[in-house]
Amino acid sequence: MLRGVFPPLPTPFTEDALDEGILRDTVASLMQTRLSGLLVLGTNGESFLVEPAEADRVVRVARDAMPAGRLLLAGAGCDSTRATIDACQRAGDHGATHALVRPPTSYTRFMTQDVLMAHYERVADTSPIPVLLYNQPAVFGAELAAATVAGLARHDNIVGLKDSSGNIAHVNEVLARVPDDFSVLTGVAAMMYAALLSGTTGSIIAISNVVPNLCVELYEFVMTGQLHKALALQRAIAPLAKAVTTQHGVAGLKAAMTLAGYDGTTPRLPLAPVSPEVEEDLRGMLKHLELFTGWTLMNRGGRPDGPVAEGMS
Amino acid sequence: MLRGVFPPLPTPFTEDALDEGILRDTVASLMQTRLSGLLVLGTNGESFLVEPAEADRVVRVARDAMPAGRLLLAGAGCDSTRATIDACQRAGDHGATHALVRPPTSYTRFMTQDVLMAHYERVADTSPIPVLLYNQPAVFGAELAAATVAGLARHDNIVGLKDSSGNIAHVNEVLARVPDDFSVLTGVAAMMYAALLSGTTGSIIAISNVVPNLCVELYEFVMTGQLHKALALQRAIAPLAKAVTTQHGVAGLKAAMTLAGYDGTTPRLPLAPVSPEVEEDLRGMLKHLELFTGWTLMNRGGRPDGPVAEGMS
Amino acid sequence: MLRGVFPPLPTPFTEDALDEGILRDTVASLMQTRLSGLLVLGTNGESFLVEPAEADRVVRVARDAMPAGRLLLAGAGCDSTRATIDACQRAGDHGATHALVRPPTSYTRFMTQDVLMAHYERVADTSPIPVLLYNQPAVFGAELAAATVAGLARHDNIVGLKDSSGNIAHVNEVLARVPDDFSVLTGVAAMMYAALLSGTTGSIIAISNVVPNLCVELYEFVMTGQLHKALALQRAIAPLAKAVTTQHGVAGLKAAMTLAGYDGTTPRLPLAPVSPEVEEDLRGMLKHLELFTGWTLMNRGGRPDGPVAEGMS
Amino acid sequence: MLRGVFPPLPTPFTEDALDEGILRDTVASLMQTRLSGLLVLGTNGESFLVEPAEADRVVRVARDAMPAGRLLLAGAGCDSTRATIDACQRAGDHGATHALVRPPTSYTRFMTQDVLMAHYERVADTSPIPVLLYNQPAVFGAELAAATVAGLARHDNIVGLKDSSGNIAHVNEVLARVPDDFSVLTGVAAMMYAALLSGTTGSIIAISNVVPNLCVELYEFVMTGQLHKALALQRAIAPLAKAVTTQHGVAGLKAAMTLAGYDGTTPRLPLAPVSPEVEEDLRGMLKHLELFTGWTLMNRGGRPDGPVAEGMS
Repeated sequence: MLRGVFPPLPTPFTEDALDEGILRDTVASLMQTRLSGLLVLGTNGESFLVEPAEADRVVRVARDAMPAGRLLLAGAGCDSTRATIDACQRAGDHGATHALVRPPTSYTRFMTQDVLMAHYERVADTSPIPVLLYNQPAVFGAELAAATVAGLARHDNIVGLKDSSGNIAHVNEVLARVPDDFSVLTGVAAMMYAALLSGTTGSIIAISNVVPNLCVELYEFVMTGQLHKALALQRAIAPLAKAVTTQHGVAGLKAAMTLAGYDGTTPRLPLAPVSPEVEEDLRGMLKHLELFTGWTLMNRGGRPDGPVAEGMS
Repeated sequence: MLRGVFPPLPTPFTEDALDEGILRDTVASLMQTRLSGLLVLGTNGESFLVEPAEADRVVRVARDAMPAGRLLLAGAGCDSTRATIDACQRAGDHGATHALVRPPTSYTRFMTQDVLMAHYERVADTSPIPVLLYNQPAVFGAELAAATVAGLARHDNIVGLKDSSGNIAHVNEVLARVPDDFSVLTGVAAMMYAALLSGTTGSIIAISNVVPNLCVELYEFVMTGQLHKALALQRAIAPLAKAVTTQHGVAGLKAAMTLAGYDGTTPRLPLAPVSPEVEEDLRGMLKHLELFTGWTLMNRGGRPDGPVAEGMS
Repeated sequence: MLRGVFPPLPTPFTEDALDEGILRDTVASLMQTRLSGLLVLGTNGESFLVEPAEADRVVRVARDAMPAGRLLLAGAGCDSTRATIDACQRAGDHGATHALVRPPTSYTRFMTQDVLMAHYERVADTSPIPVLLYNQPAVFGAELAAATVAGLARHDNIVGLKDSSGNIAHVNEVLARVPDDFSVLTGVAAMMYAALLSGTTGSIIAISNVVPNLCVELYEFVMTGQLHKALALQRAIAPLAKAVTTQHGVAGLKAAMTLAGYDGTTPRLPLAPVSPEVEEDLRGMLKHLELFTGWTLMNRGGRPDGPVAEGMS
Repeated sequence: MLRGVFPPLPTPFTEDALDEGILRDTVASLMQTRLSGLLVLGTNGESFLVEPAEADRVVRVARDAMPAGRLLLAGAGCDSTRATIDACQRAGDHGATHALVRPPTSYTRFMTQDVLMAHYERVADTSPIPVLLYNQPAVFGAELAAATVAGLARHDNIVGLKDSSGNIAHVNEVLARVPDDFSVLTGVAAMMYAALLSGTTGSIIAISNVVPNLCVELYEFVMTGQLHKALALQRAIAPLAKAVTTQHGVAGLKAAMTLAGYDGTTPRLPLAPVSPEVEEDLRGMLKHLELFTGWTLMNRGGRPDGPVAEGMS
């Protein structure tokens, strides 16, 4: 089972080239927290803008910079079945523990549930590492229906789902239909509290690149039944969570990471960096979170051993 | 504060005319449960198909058939501000305790947050009864942003919100911004468990017309911290909840009520009744719930004093 | 057959009350052009905000102010079948020559082609005046498929269609399937040229309330094969046409009418009037058209006998 | 200027590998008509499923199989600016005369008009061959506004636009804003007649892979002012045009090509071939067109020198 919090790591670029040094440092730094591992080459990893040879280096560098026990998820979804099969193979070869496979994003009108089922089965049949499904219809076009997830969950090599639909009713419908050992992780930070209480086992959320300790804390509050603290923290992180996804995307996430003491770098073209105004907003949100929690967040994700402030109790 | 479960009552028609007798019987029967009251003239009450004179009779008959202590919410939203003001006045005159005001559904491109704010303020200024906001962008077109809800919550005569967005993150954002005495009720049965744990105080859900006791039970399980039972029951009712809303709408709801021992009648034209196949599906879902709970559901909403079956524990 | 240009008349309000005097004057003034008639109580007539008793007065006043030979179309679509039947009856009683029936805009997920077919057939069976269908999915939610239009075109009392889909391929598909004596009118001014060349016989377009003579001229250019002039004029009116529909809606239309010498009045609440900036933009567009055509447009729709300027030849 | 009809060629696969022999034969056969050239690696060329090395071979083989005077357009749009620049370079190197550059299809919420403008300018600055813009918001997510097209049209190396919006008003708005030597081609076969009359100079349409001569004939009818024949032919081809795009996509196009005497092959996974029922429908449409035109269409695109049948006059 996949449990806990996983940041979907941005891919660092310096002058439009992959910066392995920053990548290594960021991974190493994030892994000093109680994060369960991380995801490279997800949507937040600018996977659509990264070339295959770069992708292989990202997996390798991340693996090398991580402790052995942590999980390394790698985005491996492509539009064609053959390219996806190839990407899973390469992700496994270079050290990923799981392949997160988004559905094809082209020809979406023809991505019927039958076509998606056949696609994922072919991919899982040959992947050297276990496959995670990925549902986010607003971004990918195609939707993985609950019945499709349930059908694919029967495949030995398909072990979980990242669901970023934002729809708790849908998450619950999935949970009601899959076996207990099938991992459902949510991708929407603002619903982590509700989703964990509904039976998911963890989250892959952009904001955990910025404030990893707060996210782990939220996870642990729920898991240990401290619901009032969990809900207070859930509400507190929601504005920043929205800012680094819906509102400002990868550019916002990278800027927030830089504010938090990492080197977020800027996105690859055609994506543009955020404006100074947005950066100021992000700084304000981080300061607000510092006040709320009593933690120093603008220095590598917060004091890991700090107490949660009264505001949260 | 509004607390608990409220069914959005369908409007009964016999040969295309409002049937006051069935209305009276249904209300009286539903009020023998621990439902907190009910809503007439909501979307499930075919409000778009009911004429003003009929609407007045619906409110009056429902009020007469209800115990004094229960709340009577009445849908009063119209497209023009003046018609909405008039509808609130009439709802109050005929005995409603609260007016549920959907946003205008025409000229939706021009329903900016400013326009909506001004509309609701004018309505609330003159309404003789407290106003509840209503957010359901997928149906109404216009969306009430969290900031707009927070702004309107400052009005003395605006006391709550029905949110049917299905988006738990949005519900949480609203809850974080409104005062503690502002009631947030959800309109999506499949997220009642998650929403109550997030701070909402109740629900207005179609399925509570069909299995009122199960819905009250779910509410009480959460309120008393019996989360495992609550989650099991939440998942159990989800398919029927979806069937009587998203899948088959008012026609499905009315058919399910008839199966459950009420007289659901059929919808008004142009709406068509469900097919025999759908009716059979609905019967199957009710039977499944009977097995799960050990309750006799197909007889006026279940044995109110029955124990919850083992499946739920 | 319905041929030529019909303005969808806004409903004039003075202090939120129907202003019959302005209505009478505007109709009389517009009818001094070669417009073929007009439409009252369409979407641009704020039909969703007008009450039934007011609607009757609008039809009566318009009829009285029009020459006998011109057609008076009246919007009569409602959400319930019975209300629509009633509205058609009243429109006929008060002097309309045709009822323009939009589809129901509520419960749109259940407005299948079968349901729409049955609805329109019931309405047409009893309407004392011929029925025109109305297709505008972006506004009404439901879509009238080409096959549905073709099926309904067989009904003796359904004589035409207003299509505001903006989709010339769809218009052509409809034209290919309906009999020659079924009138197809478009509701998108910017496609009048293309639609007339494709076989439609006229248009119901907001901008013809503002510059009726230019719209009639465009119609006549196409009908007499003066395609270069027609295309130049088509392109010239497109920005204003967009401004008084898509961009600024009824409020923009009313403001532009006032600029053109009519008394447009302001919209009914919750609709807001346009800002001074928008008004200035509209004035600029009218001036631009005056330069282009050599006509004085900001005085009751232009000099009807003026020559078309060189820019158009 | 680009004038006339260009088929967007499907990429032929045999057992999931590019089949150069079939590609060569198909190109050679299509070029025996009066088609103005062709497009490889467009959406219909399964560009999203073709790998870079295969793409290069497609361009080279097509170029070799074409007469020197015909234009070879190659799809070169990618999600990152750098990959797009690289694809344009390679397309030019391998013999394409123009690069058709779709907008990025990922991170579409951040594809503002400014971002798109900067992306296209960077691409055009370095492309060794002239660039064509591509607008199809329903498929690509991002939309190229008319003002953006007008702005980009000022770049020396951006010479035209393929517009598949299906919106004749938008096409006209673009035409009103671009210089006369900027080529606007439509991608929607069912609006070719209307678009050519509005000032476009040609079309890139899937159906011209199946019935190239009919499409050329339609183009020539409009260009020579034979509007009645053009309109009749436009309506006649519309159902097949819809079938090989909207309804059945690339799979439908490939099946129709096979029926018409080419070797369409089947699409690459995850795309599935059409069912036998769809194939039968396509055959029926082709037979219907044969009856209508008096041409033998199910043999390599029809008798090129055949007269147009009476039905078209």
